Amino acid sequence: MSANDFLEWKSGIQQHMESALAAILPDPGIAPDRLHDAMRYAVLGGGKRVRALLLHAAGQLSGASVTQLDRAACAVELIHAYSLVHDDMPCMDNDVLRRGKPTVHVEYDEATALLAGDALQTLAFQVLAEQPLTASPVDQLEMVALLALASGSRGMAGGQAIDLAAVGQQISREELEFMHLHKTGALIRASVLLGARCGRGCDPRLLAPLDHYGKLVGLLFQVVDDVLDAQSDTATLGKTAGKDADQDKPTYVSLLGLSAARELSHNLLHEALAAIAPLDDRANRLRELASYIVHRKF
Amino acid sequence: MSANDFLEWKSGIQQHMESALAAILPDPGIAPDRLHDAMRYAVLGGGKRVRALLLHAAGQLSGASVTQLDRAACAVELIHAYSLVHDDMPCMDNDVLRRGKPTVHVEYDEATALLAGDALQTLAFQVLAEQPLTASPVDQLEMVALLALASGSRGMAGGQAIDLAAVGQQISREELEFMHLHKTGALIRASVLLGARCGRGCDPRLLAPLDHYGKLVGLLFQVVDDVLDAQSDTATLGKTAGKDADQDKPTYVSLLGLSAARELSHNLLHEALAAIAPLDDRANRLRELASYIVHRKF
Repeated sequence: MSANDFLEWKSGIQQHMESALAAILPDPGIAPDRLHDAMRYAVLGGGKRVRALLLHAAGQLSGASVTQLDRAACAVELIHAYSLVHDDMPCMDNDVLRRGKPTVHVEYDEATALLAGDALQTLAFQVLAEQPLTASPVDQLEMVALLALASGSRGMAGGQAIDLAAVGQQISREELEFMHLHKTGALIRASVLLGARCGRGCDPRLLAPLDHYGKLVGLLFQVVDDVLDAQSDTATLGKTAGKDADQDKPTYVSLLGLSAARELSHNLLHEALAAIAPLDDRANRLRELASYIVHRKF
Repeated sequence: MSANDFLEWKSGIQQHMESALAAILPDPGIAPDRLHDAMRYAVLGGGKRVRALLLHAAGQLSGASVTQLDRAACAVELIHAYSLVHDDMPCMDNDVLRRGKPTVHVEYDEATALLAGDALQTLAFQVLAEQPLTASPVDQLEMVALLALASGSRGMAGGQAIDLAAVGQQISREELEFMHLHKTGALIRASVLLGARCGRGCDPRLLAPLDHYGKLVGLLFQVVDDVLDAQSDTATLGKTAGKDADQDKPTYVSLLGLSAARELSHNLLHEALAAIAPLDDRANRLRELASYIVHRKF
């Protein structure tokens, strides 16, 4: 399997997700049009779609159809998009730039950003529930609960709360890891499991190694994010660079230094690959994605 | 069936819901504790639980267990609570008082209010999906989709967006009705249908009359709310009185006058009762609730 083959697969899924999301989001011509317009603005036109890629990659093990994986991946990307809209708001990170464009509350207004985020979260659960995605509907209900657990106060939203409380604090490496396992890790981990559970679902014995892979890739993603934030410029990132340091946020770079953080990312990649080493060739996209996450430039 | 019997049933459900919600909300001792504390603060200790009452009343027709109705009612009350937390925020209605207590962003801070609202919404979908609530899991997936549709951009959140756009505008009675059918009506309507679909589910031929009843009761609830806002004081309401007029919001009272708005509420009650007239005695709680909604004092 060549690197070109992976890159082709990756851009295929990315383009594909753009169409799938565009089809699922309410048409801007439907009332309330300004809200629907803001929802589309928040979701479409960019994003690396890392969670959708992980879900599709894990879906290679589940015998799910592309349509089923697309819907589940849309649900995860809608949750991710809602969290970005709310995180960027003035009472949170107060950021003005995202994916190279003004953030939603800057382009529209704060109330519209709040409601657009709210409605994107709701749409995620609608998308995950309204069409059959699994051989058994009981499995699909478990997927709804899994996404909720990963996104809520004991997952992503909880991680965001821990992050806010940590601003300006001295925290330990264990505390930083705990925060990231929730803030970014939980949804990434859920993306892998959701892909593996679509359709007929993978061999249940693979769920534990896949979950371990997801946990490691979630941390890996965050470590690389911290490294990129510290060393890149705003134009490359498409979002405000160096903002962690400006906002006095603890990061892997502020805690370990740039070179140790880079080393950590390579160790995590090694562990993530080891976690799925016993799996057959159908796990190759997951292997390639983990490497891609370490070597990405933005 | 005496009025006393109804009042006993009503306070029974209200007390019952308080315990059910307290058991479902994350313990404040679990990290992140401030977020969990804010979520409990937003949900517990009051509220009329009108949506839970409607769901339990409709549940009399579905053969569902009290435990099943409780869980579905918790989901609806969590959605309602999240919407209040976000609606009260400075970028929306900017209100400081709710159920006689400081609003969440006043008691905590804006970021915590934003995240608590987000996590309450997520919890609603978790609660609706993670335990069996229906004889068939396919029906339960449809209930998840139904709640999402009623809460999202084409339901409650959409109604809120229309409401914000209407501040200071001259709007017609049709536009006002369209707004309320979304903002308050959609979730009330969904509460009736969710109750009717729990357990074995009611006779499918009853879904259309129940839905019509839910639509009328949703409007009725809003008309009475507008009347109470115009004529009550803050201490009685437990929330800031007269704020519709202060904020220059169109209401049934501003559009029709107080006496015509009261007359409208009685007409809507009559229509709601007519919608479920063909149903047997198991619909009596729904009949009593509609009358209660018209005659409530806060």
